[in-house]
Amino acid sequence: MLIADHPWFQRLRNIMQMGVAHLVYPGAVHTRFLHSLGACHLMGKALDELTVKGIDTSIEDRTAARLAILLHDVGHGPFSHALEHSLIKGISHETVSRIIIQKLNKQYDGLLDKTLEIFDSSYSKKYLHQLVSSQLDVDRLDYLSRDSFYSGVSEGVVGYDRILKMFTVQNNELLVEEKGIYSVEKFIIARRLMYWQVYLHKTVLGAELLLVNILKRAKELVAAGEQLAATPALAFFLNKNISVADLEQNDEAINQFCSMDDTDIITAIKMWSTHKEPVLSTLSQMFVQRHLYKVVLNPKDEQALIADKQNAVRRALGLSEQDLSYFVFAGETSNSTYNAQDAHINIAMKDGTICDISEVENSLVNQTLSTAVTKTYVCYWQAK
Amino acid sequence: MLIADHPWFQRLRNIMQMGVAHLVYPGAVHTRFLHSLGACHLMGKALDELTVKGIDTSIEDRTAARLAILLHDVGHGPFSHALEHSLIKGISHETVSRIIIQKLNKQYDGLLDKTLEIFDSSYSKKYLHQLVSSQLDVDRLDYLSRDSFYSGVSEGVVGYDRILKMFTVQNNELLVEEKGIYSVEKFIIARRLMYWQVYLHKTVLGAELLLVNILKRAKELVAAGEQLAATPALAFFLNKNISVADLEQNDEAINQFCSMDDTDIITAIKMWSTHKEPVLSTLSQMFVQRHLYKVVLNPKDEQALIADKQNAVRRALGLSEQDLSYFVFAGETSNSTYNAQDAHINIAMKDGTICDISEVENSLVNQTLSTAVTKTYVCYWQAK
Amino acid sequence: MLIADHPWFQRLRNIMQMGVAHLVYPGAVHTRFLHSLGACHLMGKALDELTVKGIDTSIEDRTAARLAILLHDVGHGPFSHALEHSLIKGISHETVSRIIIQKLNKQYDGLLDKTLEIFDSSYSKKYLHQLVSSQLDVDRLDYLSRDSFYSGVSEGVVGYDRILKMFTVQNNELLVEEKGIYSVEKFIIARRLMYWQVYLHKTVLGAELLLVNILKRAKELVAAGEQLAATPALAFFLNKNISVADLEQNDEAINQFCSMDDTDIITAIKMWSTHKEPVLSTLSQMFVQRHLYKVVLNPKDEQALIADKQNAVRRALGLSEQDLSYFVFAGETSNSTYNAQDAHINIAMKDGTICDISEVENSLVNQTLSTAVTKTYVCYWQAK
Amino acid sequence: MLIADHPWFQRLRNIMQMGVAHLVYPGAVHTRFLHSLGACHLMGKALDELTVKGIDTSIEDRTAARLAILLHDVGHGPFSHALEHSLIKGISHETVSRIIIQKLNKQYDGLLDKTLEIFDSSYSKKYLHQLVSSQLDVDRLDYLSRDSFYSGVSEGVVGYDRILKMFTVQNNELLVEEKGIYSVEKFIIARRLMYWQVYLHKTVLGAELLLVNILKRAKELVAAGEQLAATPALAFFLNKNISVADLEQNDEAINQFCSMDDTDIITAIKMWSTHKEPVLSTLSQMFVQRHLYKVVLNPKDEQALIADKQNAVRRALGLSEQDLSYFVFAGETSNSTYNAQDAHINIAMKDGTICDISEVENSLVNQTLSTAVTKTYVCYWQAK
Repeated sequence: MLIADHPWFQRLRNIMQMGVAHLVYPGAVHTRFLHSLGACHLMGKALDELTVKGIDTSIEDRTAARLAILLHDVGHGPFSHALEHSLIKGISHETVSRIIIQKLNKQYDGLLDKTLEIFDSSYSKKYLHQLVSSQLDVDRLDYLSRDSFYSGVSEGVVGYDRILKMFTVQNNELLVEEKGIYSVEKFIIARRLMYWQVYLHKTVLGAELLLVNILKRAKELVAAGEQLAATPALAFFLNKNISVADLEQNDEAINQFCSMDDTDIITAIKMWSTHKEPVLSTLSQMFVQRHLYKVVLNPKDEQALIADKQNAVRRALGLSEQDLSYFVFAGETSNSTYNAQDAHINIAMKDGTICDISEVENSLVNQTLSTAVTKTYVCYWQAK
Repeated sequence: MLIADHPWFQRLRNIMQMGVAHLVYPGAVHTRFLHSLGACHLMGKALDELTVKGIDTSIEDRTAARLAILLHDVGHGPFSHALEHSLIKGISHETVSRIIIQKLNKQYDGLLDKTLEIFDSSYSKKYLHQLVSSQLDVDRLDYLSRDSFYSGVSEGVVGYDRILKMFTVQNNELLVEEKGIYSVEKFIIARRLMYWQVYLHKTVLGAELLLVNILKRAKELVAAGEQLAATPALAFFLNKNISVADLEQNDEAINQFCSMDDTDIITAIKMWSTHKEPVLSTLSQMFVQRHLYKVVLNPKDEQALIADKQNAVRRALGLSEQDLSYFVFAGETSNSTYNAQDAHINIAMKDGTICDISEVENSLVNQTLSTAVTKTYVCYWQAK
Repeated sequence: MLIADHPWFQRLRNIMQMGVAHLVYPGAVHTRFLHSLGACHLMGKALDELTVKGIDTSIEDRTAARLAILLHDVGHGPFSHALEHSLIKGISHETVSRIIIQKLNKQYDGLLDKTLEIFDSSYSKKYLHQLVSSQLDVDRLDYLSRDSFYSGVSEGVVGYDRILKMFTVQNNELLVEEKGIYSVEKFIIARRLMYWQVYLHKTVLGAELLLVNILKRAKELVAAGEQLAATPALAFFLNKNISVADLEQNDEAINQFCSMDDTDIITAIKMWSTHKEPVLSTLSQMFVQRHLYKVVLNPKDEQALIADKQNAVRRALGLSEQDLSYFVFAGETSNSTYNAQDAHINIAMKDGTICDISEVENSLVNQTLSTAVTKTYVCYWQAK
Repeated sequence: MLIADHPWFQRLRNIMQMGVAHLVYPGAVHTRFLHSLGACHLMGKALDELTVKGIDTSIEDRTAARLAILLHDVGHGPFSHALEHSLIKGISHETVSRIIIQKLNKQYDGLLDKTLEIFDSSYSKKYLHQLVSSQLDVDRLDYLSRDSFYSGVSEGVVGYDRILKMFTVQNNELLVEEKGIYSVEKFIIARRLMYWQVYLHKTVLGAELLLVNILKRAKELVAAGEQLAATPALAFFLNKNISVADLEQNDEAINQFCSMDDTDIITAIKMWSTHKEPVLSTLSQMFVQRHLYKVVLNPKDEQALIADKQNAVRRALGLSEQDLSYFVFAGETSNSTYNAQDAHINIAMKDGTICDISEVENSLVNQTLSTAVTKTYVCYWQAK
C-alpha cells in the first residue's frame, strides 16, 4: 500500500484545512489532504529548480523530502485549534505528526528514516528541513495560495512559482536570491493580510471558541459521570486525558486518534444539541444553527461590556453563575508578520553576502513588522 | 430566524455537492450549501437583467424566485445517488425538496406560498420556474461553473455572465436572444464534457457504487436483526422503509431526514469497517482506504470479464456465492447532451420568431446530441 | 544574432495579431510576436509530452520544429486581411513566410534546412508538420487561448494543457488519445464561437473592409499619378504590383516588405485624412475617428437596403456615382467549424483503431459542422 | 460626436500604456485608451459604492467625475517619458491634459466646466478630485491591475473591488474604512513591487534611455540643419521648441500634438536606421533589432566601469569623443513607496478619528517606506 493510501493519511480527507472558517467564507471547505498533496507538489517543483541550479540532491533526498512534507500535517486532529485547547490539551500537531511518522516508519520497515531526519532537522542538508518548515517553506506557499483560492480572498494570492524560482542553497542553507526580494515581501504581506482578515476574523474566532467550549463542556460532563453519545474515537478522548507518552506507547490511543476526523465532532454536536444538560445543548444548537458568538476586538471598556452582556445572558438563558462563563468571556489573540527570532528568511545578495530580510537596506520587513500584534476580545452570546 | 439560518438549510453545509467525486478530483469538496447560495446569487443577477430589459417583476416575485432556487436542493440527502438507490429507495430529491418547502412554509406562516407556486410551475410567470428548473437554468449555470472551479477541470467553465445577459422573456416564457446562441452551444458542450469526464468518470462511478453497496448491505443486516452502530438519524433510515407519505405525515421521519448529512454516513462506515460481518467490513475498509472498485466501460466480452473477476474474488476473499455480487457486477449509465423532449431551450430570433435551439439553422445542437448515450460497465474488486 | 532578434522577426512586435478587432474588443492589441513566442512555447511542451510517451525526437528535430512554429507567421504583413485584398493581391502569408524562411536560411548558412522540410511537410516525421499546421496544431491552441485572454471573450478559452497531454504519434501521424475526445470537441466549439463572435463580428468586419477600401483607393490614386505621403516601405507597395517572383528574386521587394508593419499603415491613414481627394480623406477620417461602416448580416431584401443606403450617402456626401461603391456595398463571409476535407483530426481509439473525429460514434463533430456556413452582408456609411 | 470618439481621445489607442516595457514583458502592449476606459469604469463603481453609503452625488457630479478620469491621460504623448526628456522638454502630461480638456470644453460649449473643476481640485466635493488623482485613486487601481494582467507579473494584482467597497467620505474628503487597511497595505506593496520589478526594471530603463537618446540626437541634427524623414507631427516637434504657452495659444501646436502617437515615433526610427549619420542610425538600429543598452544598477566603482565601457565602445564603433556619451553614460532613478508629503491616504477609524495610514498603530506603512529610494546606474552599448 502506498503511504498516500494509508487510512491514517486518507483521514485528512475529512479534516478541513481552515477548520470553522467556512462558517464565514463558505467556499473554504478544502481539506488537509488537498493541502498535503499540494505542498508535496510544490516541494517537487522547488527541488527541480534547485537541481537546475546545480544543487546536488539525490533521488533518496528528494523522495524523503517529499514524504516529509506530505506527512507534515498527518498529526492534525479535527478542528485542531479547538482540540488542542480542549480534547487533547497541550499537545501540538507537530508532536503528533512526528509520532505518527515514527509509527509509519516501523510499518514500512524504515522507509521513512531519512524523512524523519529531515522532519527533525537532523539531516545534514538543512535546506530540506527549511523547505518543510521555516518562515518561507512550501507549507506556507501552498496554504496561503490555497486558502486564498477557496476563501475567495484573492488578495492573499502568493506568487509561489516565482518564489520557487528564486530559491537557492549555500552551505546547506536555503536562501532567496536578491532579485526575489519583492516577491518575498509580497508573500509576507499576503500572509499578514490572511491572518487578520481571515484566520483571525472575529466571527471565525467566535466560531472556534464556540467549538472549544462545546468540547470543554462535554469533557466536564463525562468527567462527572454523564453518558454522552459519541463515536468510539471521540468517546475515547472524552473519557481520557491523553499524554504524549500515551500516544507514543499505547496502540489504542494512536489508533483512536487516527480514526477521528471532523465527522466525529460534527455528528456528536448534532446529537448533543438535544441533550438534557442546558449548557451543552445550547452551545451545540448554536453551532448547528450557525448562531455564533459575537466578538468585540480591543473593546474600550472591557469590564463594562462583560457586565452588560452577562446581564443579558442571565435574563435570556437563566443560567447558574458558574455557567455564565460559557456565554460571556474575554481573551486575546496575536500574530507577528515576521518573526526575527524564528528561522530567518535569508537573502543571497548579489555582492555575495547573506542578509536576513529584515536587515536588507530599504526593506519593508523591519522592526515594526517583527513585533507581535496582540488584540484582546470579548466574546458573548446574543439572541438571534 | 432567516430561512438561510434554519438548521434544515444549514445542514447542506455538510453535504458535498459532488458526492464522492472528490476521491478522484480531490479539490471537489464544495457543498450544496455553497451551490445554493451561488444559484441564488445568479437568480438575482438574471432578474436584474430582465428588469433592465423592461420585464415586469415585482419585489415579491423576485424574493419568491430567489427563495425557490435557494431551497431547490434542500431535499438532497447525503451522497444522494447512493441514498436514492439504497437507503431511501425511489424517492427523488425534488420530491423531498417540495415536502420540506411545504413544511417550512407552515413554520413561516405562508411566506413561501409563491415560492411553492414557482417551484411547481403553477405560477403564471412561467419563466420564473424555468430559471429554477429547465435545461438552461441558474441551477445548471452555477453547478457547472462551480464544479469546474473546484475540480480543476477548467474546460467545464461556462460563460454564465454572458448567458444571463442574453436571457429575455416573451409571453411569460424564458428565451435566449439569437446573438447568445454560441454561448448556449458552449454551455451545452461544457455540460456534456463535465458529464463524461467528471460526473460519470469511471472511478467516480466505482466509488458511488461502493457506497450504494455498503448501505444496501447495512440495510440487509439490520433487516436480519443485526445491531449496527449508527447515528440516530441513520439508524432510523436503516430500520425503516420510508415512503413519500411518511415524509409528508410523520414528523419524526422528516426531522430525522433533515438532521442527516455526509458525516452520519462517514462515521458509520468508519465504525462498520471493524464489524464482524465480512462483506460489510470489507466494503467499508475499501471506502476508508480509498481502495475503490475497478470499472471497465463498454467491455468487449462482458460475460468472460465477469467470470474472470469472480474467480479472482473467490480466490482472494473466499466469499459465499451469493455475496459475490457485492464484488463483481455489471450495469449501465447514460446521459443525453440535449433532451429535445424535455423543457426546450428556446431562441428569440432577430426576425421575431421563436425557435428550439435544436432547430436553428446550422446549429450544433441537433438530432445526434438529443439521443441519450448509454455506456455499460463491469465493476469489480481488485487486490491492491 | 539569434533569429528571434532578427529585425524581420522583431517586426512582428508592431503587427497586431487580431488586426482591427481591437476597435471592438479594445483589449485585443496583442501582437504576432507574442503569439509566435507562445506557439513556440507550446511546441516545446507538446514535444516534451511526446518524449515522455517514448516518441523518438532528436534535439535537431525539436529545434527545427520550434523554429518552424516560431517563424510560421513571419510572412504576415500589417493587417493581413486588408493587405491580401488590396496592397499585395493574392499572395497568402504562408507563401511569404516560406520565402522569408528560405532567405533567413541562406543568411544563417542552412540552419533552417530541416525547419523548411517541416514547414513544407516533406520531412519524414509528418507529425512535426501537423503540430505546426493542421486542424489541431499549436498555432490554433495558442491563438485561441491568447485571443480569448486579450479580447476578454472568456468563452473561447481552450484547455490547451490537457490537449497537449493527449497528443500521441503512430506511424509518424499526430493523433489524439480517445480519452481526450471531449477536450477536442470543446476546442472545436471554442474556435467556432471565436469565429462568429469575434473574428467575424459584424463591426470587426466593417472595420476591416474600411481598411481594405482605404488602401484600394490609395493604390488607385497612385496609379493615376497622385502623390501620397507614405513611409518608403508603404510607398513601394503602393507604386508596384508585386508578384511572388518579385518577393523571391528582388531583394528590395523582400526588404521593403520586411520593414513594413502596422505603424506604416496607421501613420499613412493619419496623413491621408487631410488629403484633398474626398474619398480617400473621408475613409481615412472614418478610420481615425472610429466612425466605422455599419454592417447588416443576411439582410432580407439586399437590393432595397443597398438602394436606400445609396440615397442616404448621395444626399450626405454628394459623391460621383462611381465612388458610391466605397460607401455602400455587399459581400459574403464564411467559416466551417470542422473541415473534413482538410487535414483530419485523428483519434487513437482504445481498441487500437484510428478514427477521424467526425466519424467517432456519438461524436459532436459530424456532417453538419463540416459544412461551411456562409453569411451575406451589406456594408454602408452612416452619419454619426 | 461623443467625447470618447473624438480623434484626440481615439489617439490613445495608438499609445502604449507601458511605453517600451513590452520589450521586456512582451504581453504589455495595452494602450492608454484601454486604461482610460478602465479607470472610468472603476470611477463609476466607486461612485456607486458611495451612493449606497449615502454620500450625496448628483448625476452631474458623476458624469463630470467620469469624464475627468476618462480624460486624465489625454495629454500623454507617445512614450511619454522619452518625450518629456527630449522632444517636449519639461512639460508634464498633466499640464497638457488640462490644456486639451480646456480646448475640448470650448468645442463642447462648456460641457466640461465641472470636469475641469474636479481635475483642478477647485470643486467643493474634494473627494471627486481625490478619486481622480491621489495616492489611492482609480487611476492607480486600474493601471496596477491592468499592467499586472498584461505583463503577466501576477504579484502586482490589486484587490480593487474590495478597496472600492472600503471607500467612504467625510467632510468631502475621501477616506478608507479601517477594516480596509490590510487591502490598502497590499495595494501599496503591489505598487512598490511593480515599480522595482517592472517599471524600473533595468532593461526597461535601458530601452527608455535609448529612445530618449534617439530623439535627442534627432533634434540636434535638425537644429544643425539636417533633413530627417518624419511624419508632419513629429517634424513639427523636431523643428520647434514648444512651450506651454504655445500649446495653449497656437492651434497648430495642439493639433500637431494631438495627431502624434507611437506610430510616428516608430516609423521615424525605422527610417532613421538607414540614415547616414552614424550616431542616429546606430541608435535606431539598436531599437529596431532590440539590441538594448546594458544597465548596471548601483555599480560599485562607477568611474572604472564607465572608463572600461568607453574603451570598448571606442574600439568597436570608432566614434568621436563627444558622441561617446550616447553610448556610455550614468544617471539615477528613484521611487517612494508611500509619500507622506503627498496627498495622504486617510483611514476612517472605528472610533471616529481620522488617521494617515502611516500613523496607524502597527501599520506597515511607516517612516521607512516614506523615504524615496534612489538607485544609480551606468548604461552602455555592448556588442551583440
